[in-house]
Amino acid sequence: MNDRLDNFHKYLTQKAGVKEEDYNAFLPYFSVKNYQKGDIILSKGSICNHIFFVEKGLLRLFSIDQNGTEHIIQFAPENWLLSERESLYFGTPSDFHIDVLEESIVVMLMQDFIPKASSISPEFRNHNEFILQNHIRQLQQRVNLLISASAEARYLHFIKMYPDLTLRIPQWMIASYLGITPESLSRVRKGLAEKNFK
Amino acid sequence: MNDRLDNFHKYLTQKAGVKEEDYNAFLPYFSVKNYQKGDIILSKGSICNHIFFVEKGLLRLFSIDQNGTEHIIQFAPENWLLSERESLYFGTPSDFHIDVLEESIVVMLMQDFIPKASSISPEFRNHNEFILQNHIRQLQQRVNLLISASAEARYLHFIKMYPDLTLRIPQWMIASYLGITPESLSRVRKGLAEKNFK
Repeated sequence: MNDRLDNFHKYLTQKAGVKEEDYNAFLPYFSVKNYQKGDIILSKGSICNHIFFVEKGLLRLFSIDQNGTEHIIQFAPENWLLSERESLYFGTPSDFHIDVLEESIVVMLMQDFIPKASSISPEFRNHNEFILQNHIRQLQQRVNLLISASAEARYLHFIKMYPDLTLRIPQWMIASYLGITPESLSRVRKGLAEKNFK
Repeated sequence: MNDRLDNFHKYLTQKAGVKEEDYNAFLPYFSVKNYQKGDIILSKGSICNHIFFVEKGLLRLFSIDQNGTEHIIQFAPENWLLSERESLYFGTPSDFHIDVLEESIVVMLMQDFIPKASSISPEFRNHNEFILQNHIRQLQQRVNLLISASAEARYLHFIKMYPDLTLRIPQWMIASYLGITPESLSRVRKGLAEKNFK
């Protein structure tokens, strides 16, 4: 079953520098699941027990406010990791939902994957620290954009971060991620089109 | 000089669980500085080489946009850690500034403090992972508040997070942190006062 996992294997051996024999020792600590569009992987109030690596497809982490409006915290296309880290690490009920936006193949890393893989592979231990630091970097940049930048600057940052998502998801989801109204996003896109920016 | 460091000592031995003898082994990896109100600890474009622990006083991490407006990413009163982690970890020039809002005593943790302290003390190693996970938790909650919550909900969260800061900093700084105008903050405070909320 794991011979399908080209992306996950490449991610660990090439990006994280994990040795081939160590990769084999990781096998007991993950499994693979197929999901259909619309499947819910995590619901608010549940405990998140996994980190999800997207081998193929697209996941989304989002909250729902008291008016029933969805607010998107993160997208995870191929080669991205996604989790509700607060719930996973602190054992608290999740404030967020995770669902499936496209038919997906997801590598489910068990809760003890990180400590086990870190004890097996010093390269993985270093990479895990990189992942945490990088997550902080991205979230801090996002906070800064949300409190300081124009809707246009936020949209341009989004395109850079998720280059192929603009074609894969509806406009309202991009607006939700950016914290602006769909109407504002339309104006931004129209303005950029007039400047010959796709 | 280090006998002044009650807060830092308590933080490490009580909160992080570091053993007394291990604390002594940490001494070569930090120093202490006094700062005056208005001092600049880190400027945009510089490399951040330290993590700052606030023994006494108040620091602030902020960006300045192209119009010269300041946007506050984080406050750090007593017992908080502050750094520009992107610059510290990735070695990139900082996008942010750090300055001093009140006369402060700051413990300057050198860049190799974390790896050295982690190799000396397993308790510290665990605590450092907690710090990173907690930072992700706080930033993710902040992103969610910024894209989903009312100005009132954001202000209430701010008070909970920084209970004594409302008396120590000017209103415009709170508004800047919340990503709202000072006028909006006045309306929120007035609304809360009418509900008998201080």
